[in-house]
Amino acid sequence: MRLRHKPWAREELSKRPAIVVQDPTTQKGNWNDLFNNDNPIYVEVGTGKGQFLTKMGMAHPGINFIGVERYESVLLTAMENVEQAGLMNVKLLSEDVGDIEEFFGESEVERVFINFTDPWPKTRHAKRRLTHPYYLEKYRRMLTNNGEIHFKTDNQGLFEYSLHSMSSYGMAFKNVSLDLHKSNMEGNMMTEYEEKFSAKGDRIYRLEATY
Amino acid sequence: MRLRHKPWAREELSKRPAIVVQDPTTQKGNWNDLFNNDNPIYVEVGTGKGQFLTKMGMAHPGINFIGVERYESVLLTAMENVEQAGLMNVKLLSEDVGDIEEFFGESEVERVFINFTDPWPKTRHAKRRLTHPYYLEKYRRMLTNNGEIHFKTDNQGLFEYSLHSMSSYGMAFKNVSLDLHKSNMEGNMMTEYEEKFSAKGDRIYRLEATY
Repeated sequence: MRLRHKPWAREELSKRPAIVVQDPTTQKGNWNDLFNNDNPIYVEVGTGKGQFLTKMGMAHPGINFIGVERYESVLLTAMENVEQAGLMNVKLLSEDVGDIEEFFGESEVERVFINFTDPWPKTRHAKRRLTHPYYLEKYRRMLTNNGEIHFKTDNQGLFEYSLHSMSSYGMAFKNVSLDLHKSNMEGNMMTEYEEKFSAKGDRIYRLEATY
Repeated sequence: MRLRHKPWAREELSKRPAIVVQDPTTQKGNWNDLFNNDNPIYVEVGTGKGQFLTKMGMAHPGINFIGVERYESVLLTAMENVEQAGLMNVKLLSEDVGDIEEFFGESEVERVFINFTDPWPKTRHAKRRLTHPYYLEKYRRMLTNNGEIHFKTDNQGLFEYSLHSMSSYGMAFKNVSLDLHKSNMEGNMMTEYEEKFSAKGDRIYRLEATY
């Protein structure tokens, strides 16, 4: 993603603490208290401009959504989207996914979404891919026993790598689609990237995985 | 595959017992004796007309290859290919893959190839797919501890299903390719189907799996 530098972003993000949670470490293990309900918690890692999370929040009012994004200028757009939609069931964290275990307790999350994340194509950057075992271990801790990872990407190399890394970690796949927009999946919410790439005719790859 | 009925096929197959092994159950656990060496044994299930196995046999004289095919008229072509190439390291079985555990002992085989097998697209026929757990269990018994399954197909649905069934069986994938002929894989031997479908521009999907 091309990032415009927005030096005022951090200050803006701090002005909506009901949406952008300011110190998420203090919520670890207590997210349902913050949402003030017992609904399941779904987390999107690398939430970008928040189109997916906003649409999901509107479509599924009985689910609590939390988006994690480290780029402040991008998260600002997500914040505006959530605010505009008037959603109480969507929170955002201006944080690095690498620190995610500091924010969520064991078995606190029912689903993790990984959407169109940076493929980091160079082998020496493999550890930065959000489907590397380094991250799979973090997700495993925060997910419930039957928790699921839902992953989609337009990047063939990242999908191939993820099939390797996740299966080698002992994960099982279901609802695999190697051409999502020609499949009969219902209820798919498109991200900004997905709209762009699928309009070009690129294939979208998708899977659901359990530990 | 469209099959021409060749009533004389069975008789022809019986005329080359050095290639088409007549009672493979008697070889169970003793294939290396038949090959008269200690080389690794690779098995192709659904070997068709034998182009893949013949090319592999020529390229890898230090490997023993055994092809299993239940259609006699098709296997006849494979037999002719093997005979013409003068290969001593390739044997054929005129048998159903469902009976494969009667032919191979535990840990007798180092690799199983599944190439362009019938996708059986209807859900009620799932058990007939050669990557169904029913077959994965049979392969597991005959494979060594580090044994591998090498699977390729042009059929998207079969590949998606196989990612599910194999990972759910606890298998791990490596060298996954979602577009084999645009990848940098070396030493790929094309089957008859593969030549036809890749020439049309269809994607070929491939993976290697371990238990």
